[in-house]
Amino acid sequence: MSQRSCLSVILAAGEGTRMKSALPKVLHQIAGLPMVAHVVKAAESAGANGQALVIGHGADEMRNAAAKFAPKAETFVQEKRLGTAHAVLAARDAISKGYDDVLVMFGDTPLIDSDALTAARLKLAEGAAVVVIGFRTPNPTGYGRLIEKGGKLIAIREEKDCSDEEKRITFCNAGMMAVAGGQALKLLDAVGNKNAKGEYYLTDIVEIAGGQGLDVVATEASFENALGINNRAELAEAEGIWQRRRRRQAMLSGVTLIAPETVFFSHDTEIGADTIVEPNVWFGPGVKIATGAKIHAFSHIEGATVASNCDVGPFARLRTGADLKQKAKVGNFCEVKQAVIEEGAKVNHLTYIGDARVGAGANIGAGTITCNYDGYSKFFTDIGEGAFIGSNSSLVAPLSIGKGGYIASGSIITESVPDDALAFGRARQRTLPGKGKELRVRFASAAAAKKK
Amino acid sequence: MSQRSCLSVILAAGEGTRMKSALPKVLHQIAGLPMVAHVVKAAESAGANGQALVIGHGADEMRNAAAKFAPKAETFVQEKRLGTAHAVLAARDAISKGYDDVLVMFGDTPLIDSDALTAARLKLAEGAAVVVIGFRTPNPTGYGRLIEKGGKLIAIREEKDCSDEEKRITFCNAGMMAVAGGQALKLLDAVGNKNAKGEYYLTDIVEIAGGQGLDVVATEASFENALGINNRAELAEAEGIWQRRRRRQAMLSGVTLIAPETVFFSHDTEIGADTIVEPNVWFGPGVKIATGAKIHAFSHIEGATVASNCDVGPFARLRTGADLKQKAKVGNFCEVKQAVIEEGAKVNHLTYIGDARVGAGANIGAGTITCNYDGYSKFFTDIGEGAFIGSNSSLVAPLSIGKGGYIASGSIITESVPDDALAFGRARQRTLPGKGKELRVRFASAAAAKKK
Amino acid sequence: MSQRSCLSVILAAGEGTRMKSALPKVLHQIAGLPMVAHVVKAAESAGANGQALVIGHGADEMRNAAAKFAPKAETFVQEKRLGTAHAVLAARDAISKGYDDVLVMFGDTPLIDSDALTAARLKLAEGAAVVVIGFRTPNPTGYGRLIEKGGKLIAIREEKDCSDEEKRITFCNAGMMAVAGGQALKLLDAVGNKNAKGEYYLTDIVEIAGGQGLDVVATEASFENALGINNRAELAEAEGIWQRRRRRQAMLSGVTLIAPETVFFSHDTEIGADTIVEPNVWFGPGVKIATGAKIHAFSHIEGATVASNCDVGPFARLRTGADLKQKAKVGNFCEVKQAVIEEGAKVNHLTYIGDARVGAGANIGAGTITCNYDGYSKFFTDIGEGAFIGSNSSLVAPLSIGKGGYIASGSIITESVPDDALAFGRARQRTLPGKGKELRVRFASAAAAKKK
Repeated sequence: MSQRSCLSVILAAGEGTRMKSALPKVLHQIAGLPMVAHVVKAAESAGANGQALVIGHGADEMRNAAAKFAPKAETFVQEKRLGTAHAVLAARDAISKGYDDVLVMFGDTPLIDSDALTAARLKLAEGAAVVVIGFRTPNPTGYGRLIEKGGKLIAIREEKDCSDEEKRITFCNAGMMAVAGGQALKLLDAVGNKNAKGEYYLTDIVEIAGGQGLDVVATEASFENALGINNRAELAEAEGIWQRRRRRQAMLSGVTLIAPETVFFSHDTEIGADTIVEPNVWFGPGVKIATGAKIHAFSHIEGATVASNCDVGPFARLRTGADLKQKAKVGNFCEVKQAVIEEGAKVNHLTYIGDARVGAGANIGAGTITCNYDGYSKFFTDIGEGAFIGSNSSLVAPLSIGKGGYIASGSIITESVPDDALAFGRARQRTLPGKGKELRVRFASAAAAKKK
Repeated sequence: MSQRSCLSVILAAGEGTRMKSALPKVLHQIAGLPMVAHVVKAAESAGANGQALVIGHGADEMRNAAAKFAPKAETFVQEKRLGTAHAVLAARDAISKGYDDVLVMFGDTPLIDSDALTAARLKLAEGAAVVVIGFRTPNPTGYGRLIEKGGKLIAIREEKDCSDEEKRITFCNAGMMAVAGGQALKLLDAVGNKNAKGEYYLTDIVEIAGGQGLDVVATEASFENALGINNRAELAEAEGIWQRRRRRQAMLSGVTLIAPETVFFSHDTEIGADTIVEPNVWFGPGVKIATGAKIHAFSHIEGATVASNCDVGPFARLRTGADLKQKAKVGNFCEVKQAVIEEGAKVNHLTYIGDARVGAGANIGAGTITCNYDGYSKFFTDIGEGAFIGSNSSLVAPLSIGKGGYIASGSIITESVPDDALAFGRARQRTLPGKGKELRVRFASAAAAKKK
Repeated sequence: MSQRSCLSVILAAGEGTRMKSALPKVLHQIAGLPMVAHVVKAAESAGANGQALVIGHGADEMRNAAAKFAPKAETFVQEKRLGTAHAVLAARDAISKGYDDVLVMFGDTPLIDSDALTAARLKLAEGAAVVVIGFRTPNPTGYGRLIEKGGKLIAIREEKDCSDEEKRITFCNAGMMAVAGGQALKLLDAVGNKNAKGEYYLTDIVEIAGGQGLDVVATEASFENALGINNRAELAEAEGIWQRRRRRQAMLSGVTLIAPETVFFSHDTEIGADTIVEPNVWFGPGVKIATGAKIHAFSHIEGATVASNCDVGPFARLRTGADLKQKAKVGNFCEVKQAVIEEGAKVNHLTYIGDARVGAGANIGAGTITCNYDGYSKFFTDIGEGAFIGSNSSLVAPLSIGKGGYIASGSIITESVPDDALAFGRARQRTLPGKGKELRVRFASAAAAKKK
């Protein structure tokens, strides 16, 4: 099919009032990506080389968002909401460019499968003028029925217009269509608005094309393809379906998910075989995990790279730019941001490593903080190979600790430390016998006095 | 219905041995509230202005608990357990006060819906003497059947006493009843105990009232109304139903729950539209979240107020008295207790803020601890607007840091700091060249010696 | 049955390529235990006193693992994979030792129930020569059918060999068999390989035994007994079933699980009545929780002992050797490892306690770190009864703090502190008026300069 050009027209003008949101409906996310971006991706996977996005409500916000998730898309504003055919025609300039195929899709049906689109395009390649994607369901009530005759689709009938016999049809309209590029505008322009709502319905092109002797057929896809999102409960349902698919895919490719229902992937998560993921792990966007890693429970990972055989968590937070090399460990209550943790280095307890490099085999003691911020700028900390940072140390950046450097526990380190040097910066202990008891008596009586 | 007075009689005397608990059964919680308190709330929502709580097992503990969740309720002790009618009669003094309506409810059916109670009261207002709340189920086995004739309820028949025909009835007794106040005592006193167990059954008043020519009817409610809790598996089931209802309500009102099944609300959680809640968030009692907040994964929030556009978590703990003003941020591994975080202030990493105020726009460095406790009393820390607290600082309360105050990283601050001042309290660093290597050799040989 | 000797032969030679793993399939874990170990445990519970493990793929790794989970098992290598009968015969030496009963089981069906095995053994005791364990399912497609006649099992028929009538049989082969020890070798040796794949099938012994006039019967077990694991999605499914069983068992024995589906047990978790477990808790291997404890959300516990009425979490990590005595508290962002927390002691915030004892009633301030490691050895910290450790202190081990010792906040403590003494080790604060503002101006202009 690669030789056929294809335009996807994605309708994304609706307000989505039932979302009860200041954000346009189709920008609500699934797996960390706006739902309309999932539709764009499906069209691209099905070979669409042109993209037309029909917007309306929140047009500026939509344009800004589209610049990121669909930088090549042309946007068209549908000024008035006069029906789906009218919406498609907002993209008239794109459609008239002579694409072989035109896919019409909806920005709020994010689970559309590129295979379903490819199957529809194949029918166009075989000569169909209009292809409607349908799905079968034992409970068709409420859906438009696909009325077929002799292998051809002759109409899409709304529930309320169905005869009793037609109501028993279980093959329903999923919404998406593929239209031969050469016929698209002619068919769309022929759609009228003589109906109760006075709107121009895209579904009318089925009968129009049939009336012109053109070939109109339906293809079948799974129900999920038709799942439209109108409120946040449906959004969560779609997210759930997406996650279940992705988890299954991960497991079948060799990732152990002890409790798959508690692991959340993003649209772009990469994760290698023989990695074990304990329950309750969140992968935000931009994560790559190699093979044989162990991700313990309660880990929150985004924008991070984890090499093979690393050990992460429990209770680890890896943020953008965290880059763990082989066999590195980041343990409980540790945060790593914009930092390379070299091979075999350990950051195991209650530590903040930001804007830093931790050399291979270095050991970072519990409670260590890289003090990387002066309120205005961020500064870098470089910790050498095999260095030992004693617990509860503060490393005030910019700073470098040499290879094999040794920092005594509880130190405030403000100046760079050469290779193999010892550094400490802490006050000498003083012990006052009996004074602890004295203080207790004083504090206790003060507390008692307060209560009176 | 507001003009009719109403008494709710809630039966809560049972021991609940299958709970295997030292705590009386009805004090086990759902959504952070004892299950019997849910029943009290439902009765109040249905307009009950009088409350009678019939207690028995664990009477003292019940009285103490009731003082909190139902301070206006009268408690009555059922000394012996002689059946449900006997239990209701323990509240004879309350019933005899002349209420128009008497609702009889069970402390262990926490999912009772106030609409079902209101519907039953409406029937009393229309002239019924006894109204039984029922539910329909395709699998009625084990439930008492509601035997109707000509729109009237003529009996509640236990499974074992049912004819084959009656066993096919799918309309079952949910347990709750509404009784005309003027008839209640007369009907209850007429109940006898000539049955296998020698108990006085509340359900007998249906036939007694019918025999007196009084109007007896059944109303229908959903199955959940009848869900009685007898063990902790059923308790968890009820909690699950409660949570699913609440999550759906939140989503439909404009809250995004990415994985609703992982978010836990309390009975009194308030949460505004366009708030996004990532997976795995726990809302304990007393939480109010305004609009547009972002609650990241693994957050544990109770007794806290979060203003609009705040950013919380991941791994944040907000405890009682945490009060986040607009756009405040509390990040990973941070605990906030009895503290106001003013507008735009940031508490982002590994920090404990207790008994404090953090001024608008202030930045609290990683690892900062407010040292608020001397073992006996808690002390207050006031941090001024725009202050900068360097990482790993200890702020020993009582203490105030002035506006724009600047605390160097790793400082122990014991005295108040004026506006715009710099304060530090840390030892000077010393660096000993080669000494790190020397120590390593010594430590390594000591470790080796130990192993021998 | 205790008087009958019993050998379990567990087939665990397969490669399990669909697991896509370097680890042999049967070593993948369920509830923290290799799946084959669950099979071993079930056989032991059913009274098997001899164990033969037939291994092949990854034989060395299997032997090493078996040394832990089944130290008494004999291992036998099946050099070639020539079918299930051939695999059983790899254990010929064990079978020939004259056990009364021989159980043949599969290492990849981890949910086998010891009751099902016991029931099969009972049939042997009653005189059967071969007992096949079956299960009933409304959807038998794909399973071998158990063909019975007059109460006897006459054949196990593969789906593809079934007549239409036989396909309607819903009683299917679960895989496991019990064979009379005296007949086992004779029957197995009679199995031929004249079939499409040229393999020796264990199921053939049914017809062989029948042909010899021996008694062959089938027993019925639940479907889960037959659940074979071939990929990680099935592994997760089995884990889920195991967890649901265990959670239910916990709840019915008096443990409150607010959200059971979010609590994960290990194979050996012990947990007492009236313990409340909030959502999202992970119990790794080796955990014992007494009665009346409260385990808050987001706790990660392994190898730890928790006495009655302790309070753990939220966000607590208890590691191996954590030993909490009565009413001890370990709170948020705290890690405890190889440490006794004595009665009523409190470790509440952002603390690392490793290789230590915290005395009864002691209070450990927020951010305290036991500095237990010098890069080579671990050292012990002993904190006395009633001691007060000020926040953000570093306790450099080896160290002892006496009873009632009082450590000032932010101290680095390197030397032991006597009973009732006060110790501090922190620099004196210096405050420079106006200098904070000056720094801000300098930092801000540096930041601005950088951006240019």
